[in-house]
Amino acid sequence: MIKLVVDCFGGDRSPKANVEGAIKALNEIKDLYLILTGDENILSEELKQYEYDKERLTILHAPDVISCNDTPTEAIRQKKESSLVKGFELLRNDPEVRGLVSVGSTGAILAGCVMKVGRILGVKRPAFCPILPTMTGGIVGICDSGANVDCDPQHLQQFAIMASLYLQKAFNVQNPRVALLNIGTEEEKGDALRKETFQLLKNSTPSINFVGNMESRDLLSGSYDLVVCDGFSGNVLIKTTEGSCLEVLKLIKKAFTKNLKNKIGALLLKKSVYEIKDMMDYNNYGGAVMLGIKKTVVKGHGSSKAKAIYHCIKQAYNMENNKLCEVISEEITKLNEQKEA
Amino acid sequence: MIKLVVDCFGGDRSPKANVEGAIKALNEIKDLYLILTGDENILSEELKQYEYDKERLTILHAPDVISCNDTPTEAIRQKKESSLVKGFELLRNDPEVRGLVSVGSTGAILAGCVMKVGRILGVKRPAFCPILPTMTGGIVGICDSGANVDCDPQHLQQFAIMASLYLQKAFNVQNPRVALLNIGTEEEKGDALRKETFQLLKNSTPSINFVGNMESRDLLSGSYDLVVCDGFSGNVLIKTTEGSCLEVLKLIKKAFTKNLKNKIGALLLKKSVYEIKDMMDYNNYGGAVMLGIKKTVVKGHGSSKAKAIYHCIKQAYNMENNKLCEVISEEITKLNEQKEA
Repeated sequence: MIKLVVDCFGGDRSPKANVEGAIKALNEIKDLYLILTGDENILSEELKQYEYDKERLTILHAPDVISCNDTPTEAIRQKKESSLVKGFELLRNDPEVRGLVSVGSTGAILAGCVMKVGRILGVKRPAFCPILPTMTGGIVGICDSGANVDCDPQHLQQFAIMASLYLQKAFNVQNPRVALLNIGTEEEKGDALRKETFQLLKNSTPSINFVGNMESRDLLSGSYDLVVCDGFSGNVLIKTTEGSCLEVLKLIKKAFTKNLKNKIGALLLKKSVYEIKDMMDYNNYGGAVMLGIKKTVVKGHGSSKAKAIYHCIKQAYNMENNKLCEVISEEITKLNEQKEA
Repeated sequence: MIKLVVDCFGGDRSPKANVEGAIKALNEIKDLYLILTGDENILSEELKQYEYDKERLTILHAPDVISCNDTPTEAIRQKKESSLVKGFELLRNDPEVRGLVSVGSTGAILAGCVMKVGRILGVKRPAFCPILPTMTGGIVGICDSGANVDCDPQHLQQFAIMASLYLQKAFNVQNPRVALLNIGTEEEKGDALRKETFQLLKNSTPSINFVGNMESRDLLSGSYDLVVCDGFSGNVLIKTTEGSCLEVLKLIKKAFTKNLKNKIGALLLKKSVYEIKDMMDYNNYGGAVMLGIKKTVVKGHGSSKAKAIYHCIKQAYNMENNKLCEVISEEITKLNEQKEA
């Protein structure tokens, strides 16, 4: 049995979507046990409409909620009765509870990972790794995407190792193609950080499958499974991608409703445009994870629907089922031993 | 009379598009004088089809071409007979020649700016500043977008001042709204570079109109006229934007030709989709410029059509007509005097 906590508050569609997603996962995965955190009355009421195995679900009462306006570290320290902090406390204290899924404040979740769960021995810096859909129907991971704004080459090397294992264990990507985010593809490109990291990654085979530098315009091309970067440029990378794709879609949408002729045209194209929207919809993919901490934490998008939350729970289950944290611990220990030798 | 050099080779549509764009600009702007560099025979032949004032155009013979495969600094040093180097030599040696327009290798142009033209006294680092169209029909500048991968706060402050003046003088943007690229909008966000730069920019009024941090997802929103960043993250920013927009448009294009129904729909939407493409087409905007060097250099997109080259020439003309280099020199001197005081 794999036990996970689902924080049922903090998202735009909470707790409705969280509960619905949790039940869907519970009914599908037979060795899954879920603890839902949040206001007990509201959650009990919400649960009434579902059929599920009551032996595998409990509620942990938490009347308070952390919002995006709370300062992350303060919120984790002070909002002890919040659904997120109660979840983190359980994760920290109960050895049987293996993971947590939340769609709450990213900052608070990152803070909780470090303050409540803690690093795996030997990991220099836990890193945040979201995934995006590519134009060829696959996914690409970005690590780090904002947890560490200042990085050194050793950090980036660890990110590459941890996130490669993650893609294998959570999404079954075999031998993930790892690229280093840079301003050009040639080996000598970039600043001191990039040049040194390039050499480290090149010498990290066979632990990782390093394929060289990647320019940011190729992120969604499908030629890479993982992009390694410092948290500052990774944050720019992911937010620019999201922002530009949305802006173009907005323009298209505007054109579709401009006049009657366009509306008829749009009607004929409806199915295909929905397919594109669906392909780019984060609700169909899992959440972002914090890698390098002792337990599994998956952070879904703030406006996640039930389907997205279901995917996040499944992803957390896969990670624990494939013992990702243990495998990361082993590989990082091996890496550090090699360095000492 | 404003004298400019037009490098007629090195682009995907060279020299045809370069010559056509040059003639269009020459015929429109009556106090413009153009020197076209490139193979004399080819250029003379090309020019035969146009009517223009022969008193205001000369050809400078340059039989060689720098390609994107050449190493930038080596090419500038060794390819002395190339259309680009001949242009740079003229720019360096003839005080009457005020600017250069090229659609050749970005690396070689940046190298030429530094090696042949040189910095304005007091400018710490020349910076590259391309512009992008925004979703509200305006433009946004990105400075630096790749010339300086390692930057300190003083560099970024100078970028903000130079690029603000540039937007005013070249595109008539009044009181440009300057943002600092960061991973969040709050004042305390980011790494040491961002935190220190934020304070410097905040204290740089009224020279610049600093409006705070910007997250990369808002680049095209129309809320900002200029984004200041180190060359590494600026490069990620611009290439991601280009890449994502293109990928989404590719998906749409594929959908439009998928089956008969879609093709009919696409036909009805044709006009509006062309308007979107047109809005996002760099051919309608000027080129990128190198700021902080002694003369005007405008770099157009490698696949520029005649229209784009015409816009680049007009932009270079505006910059010189409004004495941008002199104004930058004055403002940077003022800044440095304030710092010493």
